[in-house]
Amino acid sequence: MRIIGCCHANDKPAIVSLPPTPVADSDPMKDDFATKTAAFSTQARQMEQWWREGIPLVAAMDARIEKLDDQELIVCAPLEPNRNHMATAFGGSLLALATLTGWGIAKMLAGEAATHVVIQSSQMKFLQPVNSQLRARCAWPNDRDRERFARSLASRNRARIDLEIALFSDVTPAAEFSGRFVALNDTGYG
Amino acid sequence: MRIIGCCHANDKPAIVSLPPTPVADSDPMKDDFATKTAAFSTQARQMEQWWREGIPLVAAMDARIEKLDDQELIVCAPLEPNRNHMATAFGGSLLALATLTGWGIAKMLAGEAATHVVIQSSQMKFLQPVNSQLRARCAWPNDRDRERFARSLASRNRARIDLEIALFSDVTPAAEFSGRFVALNDTGYG
Repeated sequence: MRIIGCCHANDKPAIVSLPPTPVADSDPMKDDFATKTAAFSTQARQMEQWWREGIPLVAAMDARIEKLDDQELIVCAPLEPNRNHMATAFGGSLLALATLTGWGIAKMLAGEAATHVVIQSSQMKFLQPVNSQLRARCAWPNDRDRERFARSLASRNRARIDLEIALFSDVTPAAEFSGRFVALNDTGYG
Repeated sequence: MRIIGCCHANDKPAIVSLPPTPVADSDPMKDDFATKTAAFSTQARQMEQWWREGIPLVAAMDARIEKLDDQELIVCAPLEPNRNHMATAFGGSLLALATLTGWGIAKMLAGEAATHVVIQSSQMKFLQPVNSQLRARCAWPNDRDRERFARSLASRNRARIDLEIALFSDVTPAAEFSGRFVALNDTGYG
């Protein structure tokens, strides 16, 4: 599976600092399984660190990347800093975790081709209380949607993508989040 | 304006601990303006303390009740603990603040008649970046919706209410949140 733009070297100055680009020999576009796995692991560690440094709420929630591979991104957070009075997850924490997870996928898709990635709209259905670890999963979009996103960003300096994020109480389905994310490339011209 | 159930004394044990009931001489159902104002002020202080003790994320966000009267509830939070890499508000913080504000109104509406108040679904439109204090405002529902909610809770031990929460970057409109909240009275029977 081709990861669009997430690890491309690019010296162009960006308004938003992107995580450091992994070294060339850990490019996940290479076919070797061990190399791809190592590259995803590096990418996950860098993104998590970047989140925690740039978004104080991520540190307060103690959100961590549990998995990043060519299938999906999974972000989890312990219940304790995200609980409410009933010792279940605060709805605001679940919304924040879903937003972060979708934004992570959108940001990696856009890579160095965008200076901003923002959320434009969202819907959430809360299905069950979360009384264990919070977990959010977002799959990479299919090839057609990724190509459309990359093409639009290259030609119009703007692209949007709709992402579905599933939320779990540990492994039990608990909520469903849909988010529309927009990537913008602010070229500094008109 | 009659505030349904928010300050009624009730010795019935509840699964969720409600904020301490204000003393009788600060009942906002009384007509005297100064008395009503004092009662809302007490109610706001107690709810804010209850939030901060029961929901760690509220303390992390430094969310505070700015205003509670017979028109609306306004909850605000400083930008710093809620910022992202771009020094604008993290979308997850805005969603969490809106959830908290709607839940506050729904909880006060339900009062002692409900043991639980939960969010069932939500939609958010992000209109503008928030680069100043975060502020969320929810008006009390109209009399008809409040009466329907109270009647359903009394007769069916369950009621739902749809609330609109407006979000601001200080005083500039920045996002629109709609939430459906459900109040349940778990009687312990059936």
